[in-house]
Amino acid sequence: MTVLLEALGREIPAERLVTDPDVVASLSHDEAEWAPVEPAAVALRARSEAEVAYAVGVCAELGVPVVPRGAGTGLSGGANAVAGCLVLDLARMNAVTEIDVDNLVARVQPGVVNDDLKAAVAEHGLWYPPDPASAPWSTIGGNVATNAGGLCCVKYGVTRDYVLGLRAVMGGPAGYGSVVELGRRTAKGVAGYDLTALMVGSEGTLGVVTEATLRLRPAPRGLPRTVVGAYSSLVDAGTAVAEVTRRGLTPSALELLDRRCLEAVEDWKHLGLEAEAEALLLARVDTPGAGGDDEARAVVDAFGVGDPLFALVSTDDDEAEALFAARRLAYPALERLGPVLTEDVCVPRSTVPTMLARLVDIAARHGVTMATIAHAGDGNLHPLLITPPGDDVARAAAQEAFEEILDAAIELGGTVTGEHGVGLLKRDGMRRELDPLAIEVQRAIKRTLDPLDVFNPGKVL
Amino acid sequence: MTVLLEALGREIPAERLVTDPDVVASLSHDEAEWAPVEPAAVALRARSEAEVAYAVGVCAELGVPVVPRGAGTGLSGGANAVAGCLVLDLARMNAVTEIDVDNLVARVQPGVVNDDLKAAVAEHGLWYPPDPASAPWSTIGGNVATNAGGLCCVKYGVTRDYVLGLRAVMGGPAGYGSVVELGRRTAKGVAGYDLTALMVGSEGTLGVVTEATLRLRPAPRGLPRTVVGAYSSLVDAGTAVAEVTRRGLTPSALELLDRRCLEAVEDWKHLGLEAEAEALLLARVDTPGAGGDDEARAVVDAFGVGDPLFALVSTDDDEAEALFAARRLAYPALERLGPVLTEDVCVPRSTVPTMLARLVDIAARHGVTMATIAHAGDGNLHPLLITPPGDDVARAAAQEAFEEILDAAIELGGTVTGEHGVGLLKRDGMRRELDPLAIEVQRAIKRTLDPLDVFNPGKVL
Repeated sequence: MTVLLEALGREIPAERLVTDPDVVASLSHDEAEWAPVEPAAVALRARSEAEVAYAVGVCAELGVPVVPRGAGTGLSGGANAVAGCLVLDLARMNAVTEIDVDNLVARVQPGVVNDDLKAAVAEHGLWYPPDPASAPWSTIGGNVATNAGGLCCVKYGVTRDYVLGLRAVMGGPAGYGSVVELGRRTAKGVAGYDLTALMVGSEGTLGVVTEATLRLRPAPRGLPRTVVGAYSSLVDAGTAVAEVTRRGLTPSALELLDRRCLEAVEDWKHLGLEAEAEALLLARVDTPGAGGDDEARAVVDAFGVGDPLFALVSTDDDEAEALFAARRLAYPALERLGPVLTEDVCVPRSTVPTMLARLVDIAARHGVTMATIAHAGDGNLHPLLITPPGDDVARAAAQEAFEEILDAAIELGGTVTGEHGVGLLKRDGMRRELDPLAIEVQRAIKRTLDPLDVFNPGKVL
Repeated sequence: MTVLLEALGREIPAERLVTDPDVVASLSHDEAEWAPVEPAAVALRARSEAEVAYAVGVCAELGVPVVPRGAGTGLSGGANAVAGCLVLDLARMNAVTEIDVDNLVARVQPGVVNDDLKAAVAEHGLWYPPDPASAPWSTIGGNVATNAGGLCCVKYGVTRDYVLGLRAVMGGPAGYGSVVELGRRTAKGVAGYDLTALMVGSEGTLGVVTEATLRLRPAPRGLPRTVVGAYSSLVDAGTAVAEVTRRGLTPSALELLDRRCLEAVEDWKHLGLEAEAEALLLARVDTPGAGGDDEARAVVDAFGVGDPLFALVSTDDDEAEALFAARRLAYPALERLGPVLTEDVCVPRSTVPTMLARLVDIAARHGVTMATIAHAGDGNLHPLLITPPGDDVARAAAQEAFEEILDAAIELGGTVTGEHGVGLLKRDGMRRELDPLAIEVQRAIKRTLDPLDVFNPGKVL
């Protein structure tokens, strides 16, 4: 550690280097419950690309792993420290470097918080769509690392769809500690392999992103309509979700919340939510004008197929806002009840009702308390397995249920992770999901681009 | 060659193997004028994935290069034969394997023609958006290989945005001749590196795509509106294009045609086009209902900024159809005048007027006949350099102009290829465009996934 500190200290001001064990520990994990954390050697609160490049060069020379992190809001353990590593905290590299209003493009450092970027571009009438529930805290660097999704991606796509180019500190063929410029800033471009897309979602295992060039959209016009459907079972709600897709409707959000989520949020925040139904569907329609009214009515019609308690276009803006607030607050509200193991399976949308039935069955068989939130319109389900603090039996049961849910998703033609990333928690599941040869190809790419296994070792693969 | 033929013949019926020199020659090149073609050894008209896998295995063992091709409509020489290669013709693997109406997904073999896929899914009320001008002839495999764009990608994105998963015969870590399954069929998914995106646009240099899982959209409702703007100079038209982007408008097509294109089409097809203006802008607005009317008017307003001869929403459906037909026919119409060298630069949209001015200047300085068509709304310009057949002096001048145009695009922050691919023609330009370290990373990936340099050697890199 002294050797590492000394080497880093040669070019990096001492105040950036964190050795206090408590602070290092606090920077050594994300929010994935039960993902293993090992003791880091040092943390670096980087302020510049040059510092990142220098630190990576030093670490490669000394055989020290580099674990990059943003806000630490990840849910798969992707930012968890490995033994003796340098934790590379990018949260302070948080400048919006450029907003190009004429071309609808922004350049940002990796530590910019998602909502801060949204606010900065909104001043110019522009919009950065990807909106993970963590948007008030999570950073663009982390969003890029996990290819974060969110509520609006059912209509507007995921992080990958907005990353035109990247700067990254890489290794291997580029030389450890080299800054490599990837991608483009034009609307289209096919010059060479799409290394930008390879980096997005690679969870810091191929290099450290130091800048992102992002595509923006014009800010949406007018207030969106909210459609609410209430159901007496999760499966009924799932039937309505499948119908929305089958009819080719594309709301700008289509979320599902079960009764347990609503109750947890209400107990905490007192938003005045009533939790009569077992499951609630929340759709947003942002098409302006009469077209949007038609679309909202079409969503109400599709909701009708699931035999709802009620389905309607909300006429109460406060209520609609409270419902979406409940969606955003569901995760922290449930975390208050005990350690939460978060699933992130994504299944073909026609199978959403089947998958929801499987969830109910699996939770019941293992005696696990489960709350379900979902980006239902994408088939991306987040059943949350909640255990009483310190209860090892409950924990073991939850872990069994967790793996069984992954298998059910795979069986239905789905994936073990829709938007949270593989990190540590989904590695086994990913091995069961993917073609073994595809994993061999991935391993070969990792070995080629990071032969010394410096970048976030042990994650993903 | 006998050894190769014998080895292939062990598992592949003789009628699939082409040795007739004229037929082999006709399968040995795409439509890129002046891109070098070398003599192939044999062509295989594959009928199944198993045949492709077997052939790749044989070629790897014998050190024979494999050059895959679809319809041969490429414009960069990506499908041109290299000496002694096997030309792997996939045009007869043209089944639409599955249309999953409930999930808006199709699975297809690589030889399916783009327009045939469009027609097949249209029967189910669905739509496959990517629409290169070659759509009546080009195959999905070729579209995937080049990450083809088209007219509607200004609003709906490029081929990459519609490829969820692939099956490919690969080599290296997978073993030559192995079929590897990549990607997913869910709306979202982040399990491991995005190898699907790596394959899309890799021009057959990392493996041979044998199946694609594609995302579909609901068919558009109603007839689109057409907005026409006529300008007395290319630069004026470019000014209007930049304004459309600046105002955050997103028509479903925004094309530019110059007078030379219109005249060439009219001379050939007699559509009744009048070519009074130096440049024409054609926009399509497909938003249904009153919202679409508003949008079309907003496009007319933006067109007004370029000081047009006229700008209006077309009320004559036949005329509108003729204009878009002219756009589609421009390339073949110009080819009738002599060998055409096709550019594919893409620049930031605010620089479209500047780039158009540069084009005019470069063509004038080199005394080259130039016609310009453009996916202007993307900043993707296709100046076509036309030379009299057999005129070597004109050809040399055109080639100088070609490289100078690439440099101008790079200087403006653009790319040498927006949608046609690097192939053979843009290799030098790509080297000037990209970070040399990014090229090193690409080379390393190529060496890792194809250590024997079997797959389309010498292309892209």
